[in-house]
Amino acid sequence: MGIAKTVEQLARLLDAEAEGDLHARISGAAQLETAGEADVSFVESERNADEALASRAGCLLAPAGLKLPDRTVIRVRNPRYAMAVVIESLYPRLTPKPEIHPTAQIGDGVVMGDGVGIGAYAVIGVGCRIGARTRIGEASVLGERSVVGEDCLLHPRVTLYAGSLVGARVILHSGSVIGSDGFGYTREAGKYHKFPQIGTVELGDDVEIGANTTIDRGALGPTRVGRGTKIDNLVQIAHNVQIGENCVIASQVGISGSVVIGDNVVIAGQVGIGDHARIESGVVLGGQCGILPHKVAKAGEPLWGTPARPLREHLKQQALLARMAKKRKD
Amino acid sequence: MGIAKTVEQLARLLDAEAEGDLHARISGAAQLETAGEADVSFVESERNADEALASRAGCLLAPAGLKLPDRTVIRVRNPRYAMAVVIESLYPRLTPKPEIHPTAQIGDGVVMGDGVGIGAYAVIGVGCRIGARTRIGEASVLGERSVVGEDCLLHPRVTLYAGSLVGARVILHSGSVIGSDGFGYTREAGKYHKFPQIGTVELGDDVEIGANTTIDRGALGPTRVGRGTKIDNLVQIAHNVQIGENCVIASQVGISGSVVIGDNVVIAGQVGIGDHARIESGVVLGGQCGILPHKVAKAGEPLWGTPARPLREHLKQQALLARMAKKRKD
Amino acid sequence: MGIAKTVEQLARLLDAEAEGDLHARISGAAQLETAGEADVSFVESERNADEALASRAGCLLAPAGLKLPDRTVIRVRNPRYAMAVVIESLYPRLTPKPEIHPTAQIGDGVVMGDGVGIGAYAVIGVGCRIGARTRIGEASVLGERSVVGEDCLLHPRVTLYAGSLVGARVILHSGSVIGSDGFGYTREAGKYHKFPQIGTVELGDDVEIGANTTIDRGALGPTRVGRGTKIDNLVQIAHNVQIGENCVIASQVGISGSVVIGDNVVIAGQVGIGDHARIESGVVLGGQCGILPHKVAKAGEPLWGTPARPLREHLKQQALLARMAKKRKD
Repeated sequence: MGIAKTVEQLARLLDAEAEGDLHARISGAAQLETAGEADVSFVESERNADEALASRAGCLLAPAGLKLPDRTVIRVRNPRYAMAVVIESLYPRLTPKPEIHPTAQIGDGVVMGDGVGIGAYAVIGVGCRIGARTRIGEASVLGERSVVGEDCLLHPRVTLYAGSLVGARVILHSGSVIGSDGFGYTREAGKYHKFPQIGTVELGDDVEIGANTTIDRGALGPTRVGRGTKIDNLVQIAHNVQIGENCVIASQVGISGSVVIGDNVVIAGQVGIGDHARIESGVVLGGQCGILPHKVAKAGEPLWGTPARPLREHLKQQALLARMAKKRKD
Repeated sequence: MGIAKTVEQLARLLDAEAEGDLHARISGAAQLETAGEADVSFVESERNADEALASRAGCLLAPAGLKLPDRTVIRVRNPRYAMAVVIESLYPRLTPKPEIHPTAQIGDGVVMGDGVGIGAYAVIGVGCRIGARTRIGEASVLGERSVVGEDCLLHPRVTLYAGSLVGARVILHSGSVIGSDGFGYTREAGKYHKFPQIGTVELGDDVEIGANTTIDRGALGPTRVGRGTKIDNLVQIAHNVQIGENCVIASQVGISGSVVIGDNVVIAGQVGIGDHARIESGVVLGGQCGILPHKVAKAGEPLWGTPARPLREHLKQQALLARMAKKRKD
Repeated sequence: MGIAKTVEQLARLLDAEAEGDLHARISGAAQLETAGEADVSFVESERNADEALASRAGCLLAPAGLKLPDRTVIRVRNPRYAMAVVIESLYPRLTPKPEIHPTAQIGDGVVMGDGVGIGAYAVIGVGCRIGARTRIGEASVLGERSVVGEDCLLHPRVTLYAGSLVGARVILHSGSVIGSDGFGYTREAGKYHKFPQIGTVELGDDVEIGANTTIDRGALGPTRVGRGTKIDNLVQIAHNVQIGENCVIASQVGISGSVVIGDNVVIAGQVGIGDHARIESGVVLGGQCGILPHKVAKAGEPLWGTPARPLREHLKQQALLARMAKKRKD
């Protein structure tokens, strides 16, 4: 249960106009189909209008012009964003008091800002720096000389290898591993020898990294994830990869060594990108597609298939093949 | 080494008929090719009859009618299942005495049933409930208000985020993360803003979750895994996914947000399922196949390829293309 | 910053001839494009000669015959390997003094060689054996009776299930899980029953295992990874898999149960191998390809696509289809 607010209060929070029962009390947030009288919900376009009309939600966040007769509605430009803002206000995050648990191991020379919280059995290596109000989860391990910015949230059981650099307001989910050795070997006399991985990892501000995702340090230079980029669970980012700002990378994507990715790139689940490929700003890669090593992917239509090609081309080829096979059978 | 039993004792355990040397002593279990005199092994059908005849196993579990002259055989309807039962009796699980390790951190208001075991350096959050005889592995972290049923086994280094709900007799393997935030953002003013993930996760009774698998909490409602469903290592289950009962989901499968999966579904390794797809009960998805967002997969032939189509159709298309390419070359 | 050495000293270390300024002092290692005067870099062939000439590196490791006029060069047969050797000498690994942290939990009957280091909050189960000079990272958990050889490095947050066997000089990265239960069930009366997984895992000498990779124990016999094999992050190796020596397995590869892999096999990212397949020595599997269950892959051309076929064949088929689709459109 959230904190109850009136529709009027929510409208004011969103700086928006409301229609209907401005005094209705809203204490929860739910999807259209499960919402009840005390819940707010949202509808993004005409496409979901029927669902919205059938919903029992006590308050709807909807764009101007969408007809919702006899309903209590707050009119907003971006209903999904407005919903996020409303949820934040109804369910304020329970930030535990910033305690440094007595079992946390703090190495020599660690520098911490005000209001840092560190969970039980966390281990902070020699010379780490942790920004103000950052919280380090239970059983996390920060290698020596790691730097974590202000207002970060490291969930339990995160590893930073030595020397990892993390910006401000970064969220790292449980099981993520940042700064592990890149997969680099050199073959000599019939055996693989480890190529030393002495580079670093840099995560920009406002980055989020999913559960059990792995980001390797560079072999010589840095591996970089740009400001505002969001990465899902179980993603692999290899050594020396450079990712731009405000990208979205879905689960189980694999990015090979030295790949360069621009800004505002969207990568769907299970995509694989070969080493040294370049993905230009604004590119959209469809689920499971494969980019060959050293290729350049340019913005335009979404890319699909392996090797990746424009979506329509890919679908046409698939359709042609299906038709031919069917004809042959007949 | 297991505990020695006679063939007669094993037959009684299985409520089955035995042939051959009923007094032979069996103390181990092995595959046909590596089994020795003191081992039991199993053969499922005529297909492996030669292998069975060549095996040195002291006792074979086999279906009625399968000819194994001069061998000691216990006749059973389901040899694989019988083998599982026999192994359980020869190698009883070493359940450590249910100790709560003195280093375990137990939050305020935690309620535990009888015989709970908690490993070293585990952290149990405020208000958690743990059912009788459940064992929590070393260095596991249970977020506040998590609920774990009776007779569960959490291996070392498992994370439950706050409020996760786990049924009875559930097994969670090491590194699994249950209840992490869904990958939900809303774009506003050129940046991605986190859509609060305030839903839950519910795992039914008899579920097993593999090592390093991740299951996100719902954005608003629950993410659900039905009773008896078995999930392998490194699988990703996104927010609001609903999985039915007695499904089998192999390694590295990725299931996107709001996918609905029926009962008795079988999903092979590395399959990807797009958001809002519906996989009906009894569907079989072949390895690496891709289900497009919003698609409905119906039971029948196994599905294959990306986009997924019936196996025979897919193979026909592949064969036609290969023939055409070959012809062209000639 | 590394330790400064003269070009002459580096040449002597490599047992190689040097040209140019033998007294130049080198204190770092970098890629050609970012190297400065005090850095060593390397160039492998004519292909990168221009880049090498443009580089500001104070010393280049290059093969004999490659023209690099007016540059300081050390002539070596395998520049990449030489670079690895030079980096090791410039950046000696900071091996912490081999401390057994007072918070480490050491079970009864644990046997350790000289100079073993164990990090904070690690848990070493009853009867484990740890070889000389091996380091166990923070918050790692070794199940009872595990054996780890000499000179191993287990990074923080590694799990070995009970009875795992690890050779000498093995590196296990953070989050890796060794010896988890195989994904084995037997269906009886409409439900899946766990097939007991009582086998083991054996990792040979000089193996490296990436972050969050999972290797299941055998159902009955062992799962084996041969000496010198290198495995990247987020790889899945199922029960009873047998992998040979000196293989390279890239990120997110999935290897199903009972697969047999020879020596010197190279497997690119996201490849899936079906159960009981056999991959012969020297095979190269291209990114994302799929090997069907029970198939035999023979050495020769790299294999590609799903189902996998020789690379040239696969590309020809793709090209033909693209041409036909284009023609039809025109």
